Amino acid sequence: MALLAVGSIALDSVQTPHGVVEDVLGGSATYFSYAASFFTPVRLVGVVGEDFPPEHRELLAARDIDLSGLEVVGGQTFRWRGSYEGAMNAATTLDVQLNVFGSFEPKIPAGFRDSKFVFLGNASPRLQKLVLDQLDSPELAVNDTMNFYIENERDSLVNLLGQLDGIVINDAEAVQLTGTHNLVEAGRQILAYGTKFVVIKKGEHGAVLFDGDTVFCIPAYPLDEVVDPTGAGDSFAGGMMGYLASVGKIDSKTLRKALAYGTVVASFNVQGFSLTSFQRISRADIDARFEEFETMMRF
Amino acid sequence: MALLAVGSIALDSVQTPHGVVEDVLGGSATYFSYAASFFTPVRLVGVVGEDFPPEHRELLAARDIDLSGLEVVGGQTFRWRGSYEGAMNAATTLDVQLNVFGSFEPKIPAGFRDSKFVFLGNASPRLQKLVLDQLDSPELAVNDTMNFYIENERDSLVNLLGQLDGIVINDAEAVQLTGTHNLVEAGRQILAYGTKFVVIKKGEHGAVLFDGDTVFCIPAYPLDEVVDPTGAGDSFAGGMMGYLASVGKIDSKTLRKALAYGTVVASFNVQGFSLTSFQRISRADIDARFEEFETMMRF
Repeated sequence: MALLAVGSIALDSVQTPHGVVEDVLGGSATYFSYAASFFTPVRLVGVVGEDFPPEHRELLAARDIDLSGLEVVGGQTFRWRGSYEGAMNAATTLDVQLNVFGSFEPKIPAGFRDSKFVFLGNASPRLQKLVLDQLDSPELAVNDTMNFYIENERDSLVNLLGQLDGIVINDAEAVQLTGTHNLVEAGRQILAYGTKFVVIKKGEHGAVLFDGDTVFCIPAYPLDEVVDPTGAGDSFAGGMMGYLASVGKIDSKTLRKALAYGTVVASFNVQGFSLTSFQRISRADIDARFEEFETMMRF
Repeated sequence: MALLAVGSIALDSVQTPHGVVEDVLGGSATYFSYAASFFTPVRLVGVVGEDFPPEHRELLAARDIDLSGLEVVGGQTFRWRGSYEGAMNAATTLDVQLNVFGSFEPKIPAGFRDSKFVFLGNASPRLQKLVLDQLDSPELAVNDTMNFYIENERDSLVNLLGQLDGIVINDAEAVQLTGTHNLVEAGRQILAYGTKFVVIKKGEHGAVLFDGDTVFCIPAYPLDEVVDPTGAGDSFAGGMMGYLASVGKIDSKTLRKALAYGTVVASFNVQGFSLTSFQRISRADIDARFEEFETMMRF
């Protein structure tokens, strides 16, 4: 089943203890779409500037990613510059230039409006709502958000959650959104805003799913070398949503398996800068690591 | 099979967002022993002062904990005062008075020397070695340590590890001991010092087992209310070692199950101050939560 992804497409400059890259392909919708494309066809809606390198476009077009919703407008592409140190748990943002993404008003192509699985990447709740309103009848609409919108557009966000089926959010955002430090309590509070499920991402510590009364915890896949954590959360969401769209179900058992796939896909992503690690693997590699992970977690 | 525990017995004064307690029963060997006593008889070696309240002694004696190695000497019992805030991930130590524990030289009673399962609680590597040298032929000797000994007695510690079967250490200590921020790399480096296995505790994020080439990650049991995290790590080790001693095996499958039992026992501990939560439960409660946890983790 086709999966619609809306969000940022960026040129990232990143420094980690493993190296430095300049103007590489990044952005939440980019990581999400590439990750999801291992599982299902993806429809991408986003915006880039006239400076967006043709090879980046080709890299996405070579996947099962429909780029007919990718707008090219006059100006520069969204740029992010950041660095990671030590345990690389959090990025230090050194510079952000929203550029053409700053005035992005997503227009969903007519052919995308029947999308049943939808991911509203990190953007303002107002933009996310704008996307939702253009769709016919999505079966599973999930969003992500960030500290800026929790601080400045909290009511719109909480209101929007009442219209969504799920949210994928990181631990610091969950704490900020609910005012509690206990993630179990935070997850339950967010559920009360109206989504069917809540996923709290904890970076190297894994993720937690709240689905009705049940709580499911999954550790991260253990890696002895993380090259660049950029895009791990979006890759996780992409693996998760891609798997869900591929099986067309969202029952509790499928959701757990989707989190495990998200975990495995994110683990590949952080083994290289930008999409380089993804470019080396296939669905078979993901399935092999999934099996290994499942065995690894059993007690 | 009887399990020998050597370590601190303390009077703790603790403040958390859930309350304040003064001079309650604490200490690494106390939490460890009580936790292990749900699974197997425990032999405790430690020291207290003449001020140690009789009711604390009775609380331990009422369990299957042999107190013939509990020395009472002139002076005051070890005292620790600490507080936790926010997410309660780390204690702020407000005051430490080593008192009689400062000059503790563990003497293992003759009847304890045949102990096959041994836990050397947080103390200097020199003291831990002193205990080891008094034992006939332990089958499984495991220790814990802390930042102070890693900083000041690193060589003795690394040397001692060559004579031990396992170590249970927290994430910050593993980073400090190895100089790497990557826990998988840290675990493997510590294994290279000579133990059969390494357990890295990550507090609310669970634990990781390194056992030969395999890595096993387990999340913490999700709780919507943590009252007091004091003793969680020692309770984890007690549940783990208690289970291992009770089955008398240390193969890979048993080790994983032991980590899961440690996780469950620690989850009960943090639901109350001091040992109050343990006093409310039985092995049946632990087994019930273990089953629930196992189901909860499956994908």
